[in-house]
Amino acid sequence: MLTLDAITAAARRIEGKVHRTPLMTSETLDGLCGARLFFKAENLQKGGAFKARGATNAVFSLSEAEAARGVVTHSSGNHGAALARAARLRGAVAWIVMPTNAPAAKRAAVERQGGRVVECEPTIEAREAAAAQLLGRTGATMIHPYNDLAVMAGQGTLALEMIEDAPDLDLILCQVGGGGLLSGVATAAKGMKPGIRVVGVEPAGADDAQRSFRSGRLEPLGKPDTIADGLSASLGALPFAEIRQSADDIVTVSDVAIIAAMRRMWEVLKIVVEPSGAVAYAAAADGQVDVRGLRVGVVITGGNLDLDRLPWSANGL
Amino acid sequence: MLTLDAITAAARRIEGKVHRTPLMTSETLDGLCGARLFFKAENLQKGGAFKARGATNAVFSLSEAEAARGVVTHSSGNHGAALARAARLRGAVAWIVMPTNAPAAKRAAVERQGGRVVECEPTIEAREAAAAQLLGRTGATMIHPYNDLAVMAGQGTLALEMIEDAPDLDLILCQVGGGGLLSGVATAAKGMKPGIRVVGVEPAGADDAQRSFRSGRLEPLGKPDTIADGLSASLGALPFAEIRQSADDIVTVSDVAIIAAMRRMWEVLKIVVEPSGAVAYAAAADGQVDVRGLRVGVVITGGNLDLDRLPWSANGL
Repeated sequence: MLTLDAITAAARRIEGKVHRTPLMTSETLDGLCGARLFFKAENLQKGGAFKARGATNAVFSLSEAEAARGVVTHSSGNHGAALARAARLRGAVAWIVMPTNAPAAKRAAVERQGGRVVECEPTIEAREAAAAQLLGRTGATMIHPYNDLAVMAGQGTLALEMIEDAPDLDLILCQVGGGGLLSGVATAAKGMKPGIRVVGVEPAGADDAQRSFRSGRLEPLGKPDTIADGLSASLGALPFAEIRQSADDIVTVSDVAIIAAMRRMWEVLKIVVEPSGAVAYAAAADGQVDVRGLRVGVVITGGNLDLDRLPWSANGL
Repeated sequence: MLTLDAITAAARRIEGKVHRTPLMTSETLDGLCGARLFFKAENLQKGGAFKARGATNAVFSLSEAEAARGVVTHSSGNHGAALARAARLRGAVAWIVMPTNAPAAKRAAVERQGGRVVECEPTIEAREAAAAQLLGRTGATMIHPYNDLAVMAGQGTLALEMIEDAPDLDLILCQVGGGGLLSGVATAAKGMKPGIRVVGVEPAGADDAQRSFRSGRLEPLGKPDTIADGLSASLGALPFAEIRQSADDIVTVSDVAIIAAMRRMWEVLKIVVEPSGAVAYAAAADGQVDVRGLRVGVVITGGNLDLDRLPWSANGL
């Protein structure tokens, strides 16, 4: 079970190894929502995404003997590069299992951090087999992108900083995909401030977390259909157990609302936000959560995307 | 004449009315240049540009009687909206003379801040005539976008913050268009740290500042031809006098280098930078200034641009 103590220990462990990101405000966006918004800008995090937090906590939680045998993960996204970076900082080897059809930019990001890419066919079975074979051969430790308590604790450090910088928050809006981030944020926030509300937000085209939260059992994702590719993972069992305990609700937003929110963030906040990164703000901007009169922490998860394929350009969608 | 005292007084005057913007760093961009770079992110300033500094200092330097009669400027860019905002904060009227062909977004930005737009034909003569008529009728004070000592002092506050946050800088790279910013930055930097170098950077397609700096007399701009529209103003006489005294050199960069620098800043720093905002970094990235081994302050002037017309998209250039 995830605890506030584990998250505060994670914060000490990763201090100086990841950025303490700014909490940004905008009178313009406040005016549009009728609320005070505090944006946690994890797009400005090392590697351009919050994933640095969890990966770094997981790698630096290993014993010396474990670290010497290295770490393994499967990820076609930001977690792979974040794990490679954390392993490099610790002087450990990181093997990243990636499908053969992963974008070249994602693969390059892993390799820039010294990670060793292990290719597999683009199926879940091939991925699991490749990871299992590596683990058997090397004795390395598997660091799952989100179904891992040390990763979840690391992601939760984001909420500690948010509440330290804005102690009077009434509500936090936080993305949910695999659930590593939301489980950490909800546990940290409720531990520090029992009266705060924490609402998860996911794309309507990948709504397994909402369905699972409402039915009380892990529902299958099906085939995700959303521009927010960072949130198309299936909710994990470990995060789900924490989210059931600590989150107040989960809402969904449409891709149209996500793109509109993303564009407004670029225009007003002057920062580069990927579609997944705009999902929490979209819930406020599109009225899926009533934020009027509240002080609201809004998570921006990341800013990694292809600038040649912006969703509002002719060739984007 | 501009002095460090005037700039420190400006800093006190505008404190709390404009943002103290962050000084951003990136290991990736450092590695590409072989230098330590410190980016002053004025794209995150109020209104998305450094112009808030000079306009706010100018308006709050007025006497009560002057402020009661209002302010006037001509600007088709960020200064107009910045002056309107400063006037609103002071409870004063701002008339902004804008050409009939100004982009609707620029006009809307002025009006959102409560500025009164006065239209004129898109010629320098019509603009001067409209401003002169307004000044005669109202007794208001003209606040020129850059040829004004209070504006120049306000812009210089950017360098005070930069050097406070990174005291060991060897060099500052700073855009030059009309010269208000560079004159303030060079005066502040040399006043605080006589050994520091300050180099102005302008687009090759609007190189009047470089030619003026080298010949020692104000050279005409001719017809500017650059994507960096924020730097297509003619160097002003008052800024030029300070730049001759305090700047060490002025270099130029190509539009190709500007666009490449801008895109890399979006990708790595995850912030929205307009073409003019990328010009100082372009000089380092493109090798127009040898920064290897140095600690370099790099000014990012602003982040206001049309997201539908990015220079790397098919319809951009």
